[in-house]
Amino acid sequence: MALIVQKFGGSSLSTVEKIKAVAKRVVTVKRQGHQVIVVVSAMGKTTDELIALAKQVHHQPPGRELDLLLSTGEMVSVALVSMAIEELSEEAEGFPGYFAGIRTDTLHTKARIKRIEPIRIQKELEKGKIVVVAGFQGLSPEDAITTLGRGGSDLTAIALAAILQADRCEIFTDVPGVFTADPNRVPQAKLIPLLSYEEMLEMASTGAKVMQSRAVEFAKKYRVPFTVRATFQEGEGTMVKELDVQEGAVVSSVSLDDKQAKISVFRVPDQPGVAARLFQALGAENINVDMIVQNVGQDNRADISFTVNLIDLEKSLQIAREIATGLGAERVTADEDIAKISIIGIGMMNHPGVAGRMFHALASAGINIEMISTSEIKISCVVRRKQADRAIQAVHREFIESQEREQSRTAPDREVT
Amino acid sequence: MALIVQKFGGSSLSTVEKIKAVAKRVVTVKRQGHQVIVVVSAMGKTTDELIALAKQVHHQPPGRELDLLLSTGEMVSVALVSMAIEELSEEAEGFPGYFAGIRTDTLHTKARIKRIEPIRIQKELEKGKIVVVAGFQGLSPEDAITTLGRGGSDLTAIALAAILQADRCEIFTDVPGVFTADPNRVPQAKLIPLLSYEEMLEMASTGAKVMQSRAVEFAKKYRVPFTVRATFQEGEGTMVKELDVQEGAVVSSVSLDDKQAKISVFRVPDQPGVAARLFQALGAENINVDMIVQNVGQDNRADISFTVNLIDLEKSLQIAREIATGLGAERVTADEDIAKISIIGIGMMNHPGVAGRMFHALASAGINIEMISTSEIKISCVVRRKQADRAIQAVHREFIESQEREQSRTAPDREVT
Repeated sequence: MALIVQKFGGSSLSTVEKIKAVAKRVVTVKRQGHQVIVVVSAMGKTTDELIALAKQVHHQPPGRELDLLLSTGEMVSVALVSMAIEELSEEAEGFPGYFAGIRTDTLHTKARIKRIEPIRIQKELEKGKIVVVAGFQGLSPEDAITTLGRGGSDLTAIALAAILQADRCEIFTDVPGVFTADPNRVPQAKLIPLLSYEEMLEMASTGAKVMQSRAVEFAKKYRVPFTVRATFQEGEGTMVKELDVQEGAVVSSVSLDDKQAKISVFRVPDQPGVAARLFQALGAENINVDMIVQNVGQDNRADISFTVNLIDLEKSLQIAREIATGLGAERVTADEDIAKISIIGIGMMNHPGVAGRMFHALASAGINIEMISTSEIKISCVVRRKQADRAIQAVHREFIESQEREQSRTAPDREVT
Repeated sequence: MALIVQKFGGSSLSTVEKIKAVAKRVVTVKRQGHQVIVVVSAMGKTTDELIALAKQVHHQPPGRELDLLLSTGEMVSVALVSMAIEELSEEAEGFPGYFAGIRTDTLHTKARIKRIEPIRIQKELEKGKIVVVAGFQGLSPEDAITTLGRGGSDLTAIALAAILQADRCEIFTDVPGVFTADPNRVPQAKLIPLLSYEEMLEMASTGAKVMQSRAVEFAKKYRVPFTVRATFQEGEGTMVKELDVQEGAVVSSVSLDDKQAKISVFRVPDQPGVAARLFQALGAENINVDMIVQNVGQDNRADISFTVNLIDLEKSLQIAREIATGLGAERVTADEDIAKISIIGIGMMNHPGVAGRMFHALASAGINIEMISTSEIKISCVVRRKQADRAIQAVHREFIESQEREQSRTAPDREVT
């Protein structure tokens, strides 16, 4: 008998038929002799709809009330999934967030889990019941309902798996797992059977948002292995766990972020503190700056380029212009027609020359690189957006299709017996 | 400073615009210097929609899960009304049922309030906040969410008014109050300014369902005066409180129930226990029998007629036929084309001859009476359904329009200063 945590996202619960199929899937595992905890998100687009409703009532919905409102989405799922399980003649016990023992801080709409008191859940598991828990929510020290932010249901599942030392944690979604690239852009993309936490985290930051970073960070911190797999398809999915550099692929995935824009500030006097003034001003407005490149020219004047999310472009440009004027810079430009191509792989730490291979692959495809940034396990290049598909295909060909790396990196046996 | 409980039903909260209007109304009272507790129902038809959803997932949704599901409806209202109040720059504190301190038994979907622990609500009131409470729900001894049955939000409001000794309890709805008759059927119908609990209870049982009986019974038991009034219209509405017979109108209202059917069992041997067998069998199937008439004929055989709700007709007929066969009765008939006209008035206890006046009014209008039943403050007659409108108008003319009784029965001053 194993303890298995299964998390189902909103797209897996968007209709009554899907809810019934999820219940069937859960009951099958239970009848194989396992204990099952089911963590559920709100049905379909419920959360977005509730946020829209709140915005019609308040120009900036207060966090406490917003959390109360949003928490109802998962409660509906808990009730319906529990009923669907009971319709299949298994006993279910539904836990809205405030009874599941998940205690958080008071940071409404993005609360952090402080501790978990799983006694009630354990008691119901021991009675042989399937436990259904509302993802995404907890209880503050003042006993108000809090929510854990976007993707919070993944965090709930992983946190429960950690505290209960579950044998298996499965994140069910509408894709069969994590792919070497977006299959819509790269038809040759393949499922990745095994990934390290670090790679998964870098993928979240490159726009390939399979899961939110916080859930993966939590899994990494508490060493909770988990799989990402499809609700309504067969297949083992992608296992994410602690991997040695030796176990890792040189490049496990290639990703694209075309939701960024580039801002350039030209001919800034090259004095200490110039960059700080600019980026502190952006930070003060909660603008997330991704890549930064600075070159110094001959006359002690520098050009600074950086990328921000498209939705922050207007505000960023305004701030950059103000600071630039104050600094005596010559000109500020914005460029929306860019795309960021990234390669990610824990193995690249052991393999020098990966960056060179990437640049060569892009050059061979006739693609000009406009910005470069690198980390230990990631290399990103900014290119023209209209060349994005060609760029990602060239890089995918170079690192993924040319290698038989899957054979050196097999998923462990995930059958629990 | 008075403590005022205001309850808003689903039709008063069915859109964002209505929620904002409700918030404005609440804030106005607060700014007059009062403490305000707002009890809210689920928006519009939410509860019906959730029940329909549950029935798609489970052939007979289990009560515990159903209550969890249904409770989300009022939670959404609590969150949105709280936000709308805060948008108007007043502080609000939202209480989902499980935090409001309303403890019930474990009878899911129709739980009874056992006790109320209002400490948290009182604390927030003392801070000057407007308290918004989810109606219709409580918490079982096992800390599961329970619901109080249809109309349960009225009960929540009245129970809170009782325990907190509120100065005023207002049930806001989509009609201006309780009328002497259904204005759709009797254009001359007038608002009743003052009613006794007993009259209000009889009206619930005659088909004029302004409020569920349980809420009125609770108000009667704890002597909580309350008003029924319109959310989006001016007017003081109807006050319901303890009244002396002397204070009461002879007939305060005339009502019609055309959702009943009559079943007749002919020529039953007139032996002890015959009626018991029939009505115990119906009771065992949870069929609510309203009027019962029995006549004994010459040859020691009786005819028994009774009325049931139309939705119970088929089942009742089946049971009646089985029992009738066993008893050796001659024949069983059903009649769907009936209507029940009732007059209600606490004052009729002091005024003999009321029944005679009613029968005469109907006879003068050429309407035949098929069944009669009476209680202390109610007289009901069954007539042909197609004559229902004519019958109710005749009776209304006789008892309401012909009297200037309103002048002898004025509502007390409900302004709180």
